[in-house]
Amino acid sequence: MDLHDLTRQLHVKNNSKIVLYVADGLGGLPQTPGGLTELETARTPNLDALAQLGILGSSIPVLPGIAPGSGPGHLGLFGYDPLQYVIGRGALEATGIGFELQEGDVAIRANFCTLDSAGNISDRRASRIASDKAAAIVTKLRAVAIPGVEVFVEPVKEHRFVIVLRGAGLFGNVRDTDPQRTGIPPLDPVAVDRESARTVEMASEFFRQARKILATEQQANCLTLRGFSGKPNLPSYEDVYGLKAAAIAVYPMYKGLARLVGMDIVGKAQTLDEQMTLLEQNWSKYDFFFIHFKYTDSTGEDGDFAAKVKRTEEFDAAVPRIMALKPDVLVVTGDHSTPSMLKSHSWHPVPTLLYAPNCRTDGCQKFGESECLRGGLGQFEAKYLMTLALANAGRLGKYGA
Amino acid sequence: MDLHDLTRQLHVKNNSKIVLYVADGLGGLPQTPGGLTELETARTPNLDALAQLGILGSSIPVLPGIAPGSGPGHLGLFGYDPLQYVIGRGALEATGIGFELQEGDVAIRANFCTLDSAGNISDRRASRIASDKAAAIVTKLRAVAIPGVEVFVEPVKEHRFVIVLRGAGLFGNVRDTDPQRTGIPPLDPVAVDRESARTVEMASEFFRQARKILATEQQANCLTLRGFSGKPNLPSYEDVYGLKAAAIAVYPMYKGLARLVGMDIVGKAQTLDEQMTLLEQNWSKYDFFFIHFKYTDSTGEDGDFAAKVKRTEEFDAAVPRIMALKPDVLVVTGDHSTPSMLKSHSWHPVPTLLYAPNCRTDGCQKFGESECLRGGLGQFEAKYLMTLALANAGRLGKYGA
Repeated sequence: MDLHDLTRQLHVKNNSKIVLYVADGLGGLPQTPGGLTELETARTPNLDALAQLGILGSSIPVLPGIAPGSGPGHLGLFGYDPLQYVIGRGALEATGIGFELQEGDVAIRANFCTLDSAGNISDRRASRIASDKAAAIVTKLRAVAIPGVEVFVEPVKEHRFVIVLRGAGLFGNVRDTDPQRTGIPPLDPVAVDRESARTVEMASEFFRQARKILATEQQANCLTLRGFSGKPNLPSYEDVYGLKAAAIAVYPMYKGLARLVGMDIVGKAQTLDEQMTLLEQNWSKYDFFFIHFKYTDSTGEDGDFAAKVKRTEEFDAAVPRIMALKPDVLVVTGDHSTPSMLKSHSWHPVPTLLYAPNCRTDGCQKFGESECLRGGLGQFEAKYLMTLALANAGRLGKYGA
Repeated sequence: MDLHDLTRQLHVKNNSKIVLYVADGLGGLPQTPGGLTELETARTPNLDALAQLGILGSSIPVLPGIAPGSGPGHLGLFGYDPLQYVIGRGALEATGIGFELQEGDVAIRANFCTLDSAGNISDRRASRIASDKAAAIVTKLRAVAIPGVEVFVEPVKEHRFVIVLRGAGLFGNVRDTDPQRTGIPPLDPVAVDRESARTVEMASEFFRQARKILATEQQANCLTLRGFSGKPNLPSYEDVYGLKAAAIAVYPMYKGLARLVGMDIVGKAQTLDEQMTLLEQNWSKYDFFFIHFKYTDSTGEDGDFAAKVKRTEEFDAAVPRIMALKPDVLVVTGDHSTPSMLKSHSWHPVPTLLYAPNCRTDGCQKFGESECLRGGLGQFEAKYLMTLALANAGRLGKYGA
């Protein structure tokens, strides 16, 4: 029996409200061993007050030592085992730009590349062509027409773009055409199983037409196809938890991930203030709210300790607007750590706070990595956060008699 | 997806060095409840200094409450789930005496036993015949000759010895011939599957010839065969972690276990000093070093608290020679606890220390069981130690995008 078999069987409905307030990349490292992390340096009076009323712990996004990308990181927070549910690279890229995949679509990450006069790849990333130039070329590729299949071509960033094939009988088990080195031509797409043969035909036809269109380009005179994948088959929040859920995010990637588990995407906020306003406006309409704050991750990726501290304080400052709504359960955490010292996602456990009236407090006084080590939630895999939230909301019945 | 599917996919190479420094049976118990354990009693200034720079935790060798033997204990430390990978008893006995099993070998644990005049077993262990006497008899058994099969017979200790059959078409699924009680004759070997029928033929022939050779012996006039097993099929460190690994051990068992996961056995050290010299000499040649220290276990098995304390201090005293090499990651732990109070391996979690520049320190001041309870690694299954070590060495890429 997996976790969702259990929650499907045990969940009950009530009028409680659960908020999952996520600071992307929240966990950090001190600038010198033994010092304070970004979160511990930040002035976070609201989160510290909640730490005293709530229960703390350290969340392990996937497994000890494993640094997750945004996909697995959020799946874990949403209660979906990130090793069981895998979002293909093409599907994640499409999700990241807000493309709404449908059942049966095949999404492909495409790269512009440069071929030399002999037809061999001289630059796998077309010299990282500028995003605006690439977008213009992507527009030209929309002229590709394949009978029986709807084709979408969408720019992402620099040399990267997304192709989505929509039609009957398409499956995503197809090998990459990027040979991962220069000096040879792109590979042909090859089907890994018989079901994916038709996808290979369509991808080959796309490639043929696209090469003609790109023939006159200097940098981006060819393309490679990678990460063929279908829409991931994730059960919905309604199905597994009985929750009507809303996502309030700024960036397309996180809206997309939330959509994959059946959350409604609410509004078009550009700032945390606007996100809080949306939360207030939609409070009566949903059981569960996922609020995503990006900048603790992006400042960490930039290696900017001070900026991450500041963004953490901004994240803290919005807490009173959430608490004014009197949520039954508030979970504050991140999808992974992004220490400024490492300028990247990392494997370090993520500080986590769960506030609920009957959470059993643990004597912790502040919200930070060291204090979380002494917290009542201990160290736990992120995938258990949702069962803890549901239980604290009175939304899980007893297992067995 | 299992842990090694993950590490296979994520591991990257760099120039980092990882050292796994193992004090066998490290964990202990106080002599009176609330007192200090062996490790806490020992003066360990070097490990205490590392505890302040590193991160501590308590490693669970297999599962809570399960005391492991040396085989599963070390498999866990090496990152191989000890419930998934099982080393057969015969294979472990062969490994323990340094016999290098080959693919297709079948190893058998054999016991000398005593038959009465009616041909029934009167002593299953031949009155624990002295090792030197037993070894002389084992030498006689080398006269056994079976066409088409190479036969090895090696003494172990007292009544125990090892038989290895080497030849085509041998499989190890054969039942023990030891009836586990006296008053009846040894059982016939019985194949559990068809593939093992030839092994039964060969084992029966060995038994027939051996009985003739033993006919004139007093104590050891017969033998039983147990733990038929082939070479365990463990993926290598190079395969699952991308690590070129060396083992520096004194005792054959630990060399053998390391060899099973593809480590090179380096040198023939007899003392910890010699092991450290080998470490220095081989530093540039490997990515990973497993150093095994036996005496914290053997003194624990002897129930000699003071001796275990002294051996722990000896283990500590060698730390500066490791640190002088500036390892990127140093893990100090045991394969299980061997409390002198219990004179045996136990289930108690094992004190563990991981030193690395970005490990996220936890404020712990000393290396010991109580302090480890407050450590940032929490309690974790030993099998995750390798992913933690790899992550801290910068040798694991991000999981998912």
